[in-house]
Amino acid sequence: MPDLQTVVDEIHRELSPRFGEGRVADYIPQLARVRPDRFGIAVQTVDGGVHLAGDADVSFSIQSISKVFTLTIALGKLGDAIWKRVGREPSGTAFNSIVQLEREAGIPRNPFINAGALAITDLLLAGHPPKAAIGEILRFVRYLADDEDIVIDHEVARSEAATGYRNAALANFMRSFDRLNHPVEHVLGVYFHQCAIAMSCRQLARAGLYLAAGGSNPLTGHRVVSRQRARRINALMLTCGHYDGSGDFAYHVGLPGKSGVGGGILAIAPGNASIAVWSPGLNDVGNSALGTVALEMLAARTGWSVFGA
Amino acid sequence: MPDLQTVVDEIHRELSPRFGEGRVADYIPQLARVRPDRFGIAVQTVDGGVHLAGDADVSFSIQSISKVFTLTIALGKLGDAIWKRVGREPSGTAFNSIVQLEREAGIPRNPFINAGALAITDLLLAGHPPKAAIGEILRFVRYLADDEDIVIDHEVARSEAATGYRNAALANFMRSFDRLNHPVEHVLGVYFHQCAIAMSCRQLARAGLYLAAGGSNPLTGHRVVSRQRARRINALMLTCGHYDGSGDFAYHVGLPGKSGVGGGILAIAPGNASIAVWSPGLNDVGNSALGTVALEMLAARTGWSVFGA
Amino acid sequence: MPDLQTVVDEIHRELSPRFGEGRVADYIPQLARVRPDRFGIAVQTVDGGVHLAGDADVSFSIQSISKVFTLTIALGKLGDAIWKRVGREPSGTAFNSIVQLEREAGIPRNPFINAGALAITDLLLAGHPPKAAIGEILRFVRYLADDEDIVIDHEVARSEAATGYRNAALANFMRSFDRLNHPVEHVLGVYFHQCAIAMSCRQLARAGLYLAAGGSNPLTGHRVVSRQRARRINALMLTCGHYDGSGDFAYHVGLPGKSGVGGGILAIAPGNASIAVWSPGLNDVGNSALGTVALEMLAARTGWSVFGA
Amino acid sequence: MPDLQTVVDEIHRELSPRFGEGRVADYIPQLARVRPDRFGIAVQTVDGGVHLAGDADVSFSIQSISKVFTLTIALGKLGDAIWKRVGREPSGTAFNSIVQLEREAGIPRNPFINAGALAITDLLLAGHPPKAAIGEILRFVRYLADDEDIVIDHEVARSEAATGYRNAALANFMRSFDRLNHPVEHVLGVYFHQCAIAMSCRQLARAGLYLAAGGSNPLTGHRVVSRQRARRINALMLTCGHYDGSGDFAYHVGLPGKSGVGGGILAIAPGNASIAVWSPGLNDVGNSALGTVALEMLAARTGWSVFGA
Repeated sequence: MPDLQTVVDEIHRELSPRFGEGRVADYIPQLARVRPDRFGIAVQTVDGGVHLAGDADVSFSIQSISKVFTLTIALGKLGDAIWKRVGREPSGTAFNSIVQLEREAGIPRNPFINAGALAITDLLLAGHPPKAAIGEILRFVRYLADDEDIVIDHEVARSEAATGYRNAALANFMRSFDRLNHPVEHVLGVYFHQCAIAMSCRQLARAGLYLAAGGSNPLTGHRVVSRQRARRINALMLTCGHYDGSGDFAYHVGLPGKSGVGGGILAIAPGNASIAVWSPGLNDVGNSALGTVALEMLAARTGWSVFGA
Repeated sequence: MPDLQTVVDEIHRELSPRFGEGRVADYIPQLARVRPDRFGIAVQTVDGGVHLAGDADVSFSIQSISKVFTLTIALGKLGDAIWKRVGREPSGTAFNSIVQLEREAGIPRNPFINAGALAITDLLLAGHPPKAAIGEILRFVRYLADDEDIVIDHEVARSEAATGYRNAALANFMRSFDRLNHPVEHVLGVYFHQCAIAMSCRQLARAGLYLAAGGSNPLTGHRVVSRQRARRINALMLTCGHYDGSGDFAYHVGLPGKSGVGGGILAIAPGNASIAVWSPGLNDVGNSALGTVALEMLAARTGWSVFGA
Repeated sequence: MPDLQTVVDEIHRELSPRFGEGRVADYIPQLARVRPDRFGIAVQTVDGGVHLAGDADVSFSIQSISKVFTLTIALGKLGDAIWKRVGREPSGTAFNSIVQLEREAGIPRNPFINAGALAITDLLLAGHPPKAAIGEILRFVRYLADDEDIVIDHEVARSEAATGYRNAALANFMRSFDRLNHPVEHVLGVYFHQCAIAMSCRQLARAGLYLAAGGSNPLTGHRVVSRQRARRINALMLTCGHYDGSGDFAYHVGLPGKSGVGGGILAIAPGNASIAVWSPGLNDVGNSALGTVALEMLAARTGWSVFGA
Repeated sequence: MPDLQTVVDEIHRELSPRFGEGRVADYIPQLARVRPDRFGIAVQTVDGGVHLAGDADVSFSIQSISKVFTLTIALGKLGDAIWKRVGREPSGTAFNSIVQLEREAGIPRNPFINAGALAITDLLLAGHPPKAAIGEILRFVRYLADDEDIVIDHEVARSEAATGYRNAALANFMRSFDRLNHPVEHVLGVYFHQCAIAMSCRQLARAGLYLAAGGSNPLTGHRVVSRQRARRINALMLTCGHYDGSGDFAYHVGLPGKSGVGGGILAIAPGNASIAVWSPGLNDVGNSALGTVALEMLAARTGWSVFGA
């Protein structure tokens, strides 16, 4: 394998003529105004190396990548009981589709589509007011990244709340099937805040390291989840982490990953590294266009595909 | 890691009280009359080891596992051009669902659901009469397994043809969208024959070895596909190989796999081994019930999950 | 034709052993506590005759029957422009299905399913605060029935609002497609109040008389809608007025009709009479079970089917 | 009401500048080669009057209009038992959709969509070879029209058979749910022949007269069906006779009707007349574009809407 920093630098350089590709999410002004030519990449290896390029230290809205962290918390608190509330199968439809929910009576297909993430968020509200649940999520992310500077962009959260009709539809729909235990506004409130967490590629890669390293953070020595659970979260990321583009991502990149509409992707090379990329322009199915390309290049050059060297 | 033969023997012994679990496919008499308490397992390692237990040398109908081999042939002949005819995404529906086909105008979601396999079979008919296409598939499987004794069970093929209304519906439906180039009866004829290939676990594990070994068969030294293509086929098996149970299989087993309604599963541990299990009883989504359990046990005890040791 | 009062009395007497059939709506306590053995019928002829039996003077919650009146108001104010917001086709799905809305990007199939009624209610909010819109609807119903005593059951409206998650999902979903102009809570507020209008069979039959009499109320001489519009509203009631039981209602009864989950049905015999029945027990598709039977008997004995004497 | 012949002549004259509108069905050459500017209309009144204009004596392929006649035969032979095999509700989807069939396990929604007509055709095969069933249908249509010159266009039937993949998909799909009793090819064979019956507007209007006249043919004195059954067939035509344009047809025309892809429509004005129009260009939902307009004009000028004068 070539030197990792060289790989990262080359990817950055080779892609630079394409910076700005894709379509930046514009459903709220806070996302729409992000410069489309931003591009960052951070590779955090399990043995402590950090390789950065581009805007790797610029914060962006992690959006749906937060679903990995809330799933981890929920599994920690409730274990396999969460699977009564949400499935483990790819949805075969868009991230915000409501069709499947009607067919399956309010049980979302997996924790990484919006409906499934709302079900997980509802679980995190047990015994907590919304503010406390938000605080718990933020603290957990800070703990994972070992960085107390990570914050929530409240302006983003407010803006999501003001226009989040589709998510409100999903939450109300699940509530109509008695699949949420808490008030719809509470669930949505927490959800919009978790999505509004702002992180840099460097922070995000570090936060995901436990998934690359068998459940423990090798930098801090903290065990986050069991070895088996880390594998299982990776499995869910691989089959469901890119909505209706998950199959394609597995085909081209071959790594577990989770994308966010802010243009970020967290990818895991088990045993090797946690990787974060950020490029705001999205492809047709709502995943970072250049971010996906960058990860495909990285996987090819490092031989990190989980599907064989 | 414990001794592999010991692992295989223990799995066989521990599962023996459960032999017969699940529901044997009974849509044709040839499958219905298989003894439900059959159980075989074969692990073929990339370094040449073979570990067998139970009915590992008894032939069974590989059914949909054949889709892995026809996909491999089609990729070899046509390369990425096949992706104009079939997608790479999990379907989110049953193996024989027609709903998605209507929404997506006759383009099946992936090559491992029935509709997708029919599309692939259609491609293999280019320039061939059906008999020649069937011959080519059989020859390829024999070549992969390095075993000239593998045959097609023509009684099974005839019986499938006599009752295969659902597949006939799928094929006619695709034809109505101009998505098949050859007569529906030709496509179905080849398809029913490829599904009727009979193999033992030992043969099947050997036939799949190229996917575990970066595209080459280390026993014969033949390169079957490129390294990248082997990874990609594995990726498709992981995301789509178990119909609407693919997510669950990835979660529990963590290996690329392809199941057949005859009760067989081919699973790939990249870099390590090709594994075949057979137990005729199926679970709710149509995959071998005990076969899945056996693979979960094997993956746990060997640490072969692609999602981390 | 036999004497109408005799027909009505006989229907009441013949059905009395079956009073209580069906399943009373119980999603809010105010509906659940209605005595299931209630049964009322009122036939208001275009020449001024009134024929009553049973609980014809007891008020009940008209629920979705209100959709006929709000459609009439919206057509009066906006004419055919409303058809940009809602279709005119039977839905082929349940009254509260959201599946079709996703496929058709937020345009409900017709004004008589919940989503369609919400779209109409949204139109009535143009230039009005919710209270004024509610007032306008109530005044219109009072005007139609020529009865100032008709009121809204505010307890029902509040209860609907507290538990109306499915309708909230529909409204938010439409809003996410930019298909509602007013705040979701305003639309829902007005909708829940229109559904909570309480009327007796006598009042309801009188209120619907304009549809039986070519658009004018022959009792008051007021023209409500044009002759053509009355026909068209009748057509919509016939094809869409009983949700996914509309075909069956047309087959068995043969009259335009609109049902409500409170157990009421308003049916129109063009040129002859406006008919209201009430029996709280619902059938499988959510329409009054005995109410439907009563109307089938009435249509058979009077020869009032629109499909031939 | 103005003089009927005048009305018919005026409609013909007023529409003549628009002859050719719409899109002629071209899935088989026999339909594609029909001159698009053809236009015929025939009004056969219950009191024996016949009013013709344009190409009222030119034969065309009645296609799906034949479903009215096969339904009538099936009801005559089996009565309400047919409703175990097919529903009575509008489909909410296109004429050839297969989605609903999967959701409802092979029971078509109504006898006028293709799947439903195939179910009815299957019933007509009971105890008959296909040729006999075809003969029975043709004899029945000749009897209704009192015209022995009506024939089947065998070239059309052959052409449909050669390309009827969508119908073959529907039939195979139903067969896979055990919803057809006879071989798929037999059912399709009869179906393609019934659709290939060629009739003129004059013949078609006469054949439908029993539905306008309470079940009897007033010209011949033959009772075809009971009064109640005539009403019920009309009800089905109104709610389901124009596929996913049925609501719109009821709204604009207000008469029971059944369209065919050959451009014909049979409409019934109960108590007044049976009407046939023919104009080959189809609208977006597959019904004759100008034929619909002509019927709307006729209904408006005669006041024949079933929804009120």
